[in-house]
Amino acid sequence: MLECIVTKFGGSSLSTDEQFRKVRSILELEPTRRYLVPSAPGKRFSDDEKVTDLLYLCHSLALEGKPFADEFAKIRERYMDIARGLHLKVDIAGKLKEVEEGIAGGKGRDWCASRGEYLCALLMADYLGWRFVDAADGIVFNEEGVLDDDRTQQKLSALLADGKPAVVPGFYGAFENGEVHTFTRGGSDITGALVARAVNADVYENWTDVSGFLMADPRIIDSPAEISSITYKELRELSHMGASVLHEDAMFPVHRAGIPTNIRNTNKPYHPGTLISRNAPNEVSVPTITGIAGHKGYSVIAIEKNMMNSEVGFGRKVLQIMEEADISFEHMPTGIDSMCVVVSSEKLAPHRDEVLRRLEALVDGSGSVSVSDHLSIIATVGRGMVHNCGTAARLFSAMSRARINVRMIDQGSSELSIIVGVNDSDFEATINAIYHEFVG
Amino acid sequence: MLECIVTKFGGSSLSTDEQFRKVRSILELEPTRRYLVPSAPGKRFSDDEKVTDLLYLCHSLALEGKPFADEFAKIRERYMDIARGLHLKVDIAGKLKEVEEGIAGGKGRDWCASRGEYLCALLMADYLGWRFVDAADGIVFNEEGVLDDDRTQQKLSALLADGKPAVVPGFYGAFENGEVHTFTRGGSDITGALVARAVNADVYENWTDVSGFLMADPRIIDSPAEISSITYKELRELSHMGASVLHEDAMFPVHRAGIPTNIRNTNKPYHPGTLISRNAPNEVSVPTITGIAGHKGYSVIAIEKNMMNSEVGFGRKVLQIMEEADISFEHMPTGIDSMCVVVSSEKLAPHRDEVLRRLEALVDGSGSVSVSDHLSIIATVGRGMVHNCGTAARLFSAMSRARINVRMIDQGSSELSIIVGVNDSDFEATINAIYHEFVG
Repeated sequence: MLECIVTKFGGSSLSTDEQFRKVRSILELEPTRRYLVPSAPGKRFSDDEKVTDLLYLCHSLALEGKPFADEFAKIRERYMDIARGLHLKVDIAGKLKEVEEGIAGGKGRDWCASRGEYLCALLMADYLGWRFVDAADGIVFNEEGVLDDDRTQQKLSALLADGKPAVVPGFYGAFENGEVHTFTRGGSDITGALVARAVNADVYENWTDVSGFLMADPRIIDSPAEISSITYKELRELSHMGASVLHEDAMFPVHRAGIPTNIRNTNKPYHPGTLISRNAPNEVSVPTITGIAGHKGYSVIAIEKNMMNSEVGFGRKVLQIMEEADISFEHMPTGIDSMCVVVSSEKLAPHRDEVLRRLEALVDGSGSVSVSDHLSIIATVGRGMVHNCGTAARLFSAMSRARINVRMIDQGSSELSIIVGVNDSDFEATINAIYHEFVG
Repeated sequence: MLECIVTKFGGSSLSTDEQFRKVRSILELEPTRRYLVPSAPGKRFSDDEKVTDLLYLCHSLALEGKPFADEFAKIRERYMDIARGLHLKVDIAGKLKEVEEGIAGGKGRDWCASRGEYLCALLMADYLGWRFVDAADGIVFNEEGVLDDDRTQQKLSALLADGKPAVVPGFYGAFENGEVHTFTRGGSDITGALVARAVNADVYENWTDVSGFLMADPRIIDSPAEISSITYKELRELSHMGASVLHEDAMFPVHRAGIPTNIRNTNKPYHPGTLISRNAPNEVSVPTITGIAGHKGYSVIAIEKNMMNSEVGFGRKVLQIMEEADISFEHMPTGIDSMCVVVSSEKLAPHRDEVLRRLEALVDGSGSVSVSDHLSIIATVGRGMVHNCGTAARLFSAMSRARINVRMIDQGSSELSIIVGVNDSDFEATINAIYHEFVG
């Protein structure tokens, strides 16, 4: 039985009083949902403005000494609408005045932006009858603006130690001197993870406007299936390869604490969403693949050198050249007397001539260095592949039937994924071939 | 039309007067065969002794001050038998006496061993009516005992400049001071390659007792097919993976000079054998795969580290640790936040604890390092795979049908090969599955 759930609601889940009502009914469905981390109100319709964007705009105008009353009026309206719609007692007008004065009075950019979550949390706390706990009192940044993980865990868990239901605004914290500092955009996900860890939650629920992660990019696959269960590792592989998921920093605290994250849809509260856990739960049946993600725009630097394989240290020298140009490599397939370094074409571009010149010097006339561009890398990820000996066969058969030429294969480091390289022009066809082979 | 062929005959091709007759008839079939490099007489039957082994034995006995007359008598008998059988005029008895006195008189180990080829070449030159050219006058080693490639090319081409047919004994050369020095065993192949390069031969024929290279190890595959045509690169890949072929040093001089090598069978002179060339000749049809070779006994060092992929230089640091332990790596499959280094278990053994300790220090608590042994690596090699999009599919389907679990895949650096890693216990089954898929 679940004892404690931390919920985080995204901006679209908090855009109107109607959305606030959905949130409350979701919390009422499950009394162990005892903590809530809100974002700032998001768009109500596609052309709408996000409160946070308006706050940034007000700050910029104020900085230039220009009036920002019209823009702030839009912000005021959003919060007042919600408060009126829900008959809230909190003095939101007074709080809005403080914010407006703060912006006019030269408060910092981070403070201004953070007020979106701050005000939203005040409304929500009032609506739910829960305690408001200011994130500035619990989330600590060091002087470089980096999260102080230990201090945060210490302060936040102390703040929430009484176990009473609380609303903690997302997106920001403060330096030790109390000055507000924000995470990068989307940082409310991080706040939710930190709160979940601080109260040692059983589950961290991240409520959004989608019913979990999709197995493939919906711009490539028509209505791709949802992922019901995924491990943090699988998710990391997919997100690295371009799948749009949670920010790394938002998974880290809960991943390390062994707390599963559940991606849920505020508009479909009974849909189980996607459960992200450290180890796959006891599953009746694991699908062979969990997801597919990929990226275009890689370059392959091919290096051939006579007797390379007999030369201890050659690979290290190649990677040293890449490192000194500050280029991380994605893959390094090796043959006999040949190796390739697969890198992002964009990252290579500013150093291309220098890197090639240095590699040429390394092979020193007894080999060759060449670059070919327009490589796509596609990762097919799935914990179900580990002991399934037919996966590679099915994957390459599907690609073969689609007449796609395999330029690179890398499998073995993580048993979770098979990585293939194809021409950029085959990118979409490859994802289609693999998806339909395994998902249907 | 071929202008000049250099031939090299192995020990089994020169074991008896009957074999000498075969050699002459081979040379007579093609008058452009104008140079011959002989090994020392090999075994006449499976329990027979090789002349070179007997010479080493005589030297060792002499060094210990023991009599070696009985052993030398066996050597004498071998050469006298051939000379008698072919009615040769050369004073082989006198030459044998000189050798016996040399051994007794404290001549060096290399000189003693080299007399097998020396005497054999004397007999052959007499039998063919060709010039005898001593390898000690043309093949030069530097003070470290390493072939002086430039000096050798210069002296050997000068010695053979008149274009007259010549016999040059294999296996040895000399330091600049004239002292005889040998290649490692099997070094007659190198001599043949150096002679072929010196006379700018059109083909270097290497006559043995097999009709060329086999597509797979006959201890694993029953009567594997012969390879009719292969490139030096393909051969290098197969030989690196354990196929028993020519020594690297025996391919290098001819490969670089663009001279093809033809492996032929003295006992089947009309069989075309295996042609090794720099670029594949104009072929009517190229088989998809050229050969399969592999090795058991690799270890996989798996390294996981949080956010490894965001850390420029991590791969370089890992390879530096391997380099400082003097361990070359075979493959380095990479995943997200994980990489593996595949190394020979034997090479890892003496440094295992140290390497693991250093890698543990590198991941520094935010990851893990583990080793799994008993990995086999199998390379499927073929220039016909380059633009054949179904090869990977067929290969993995065959493995899947044989219920073999793929532990690693590496393809991409060389488009010539697909490399798979499997459990040692699946080694033979994998080679069987792949062979029968592509060869039948």
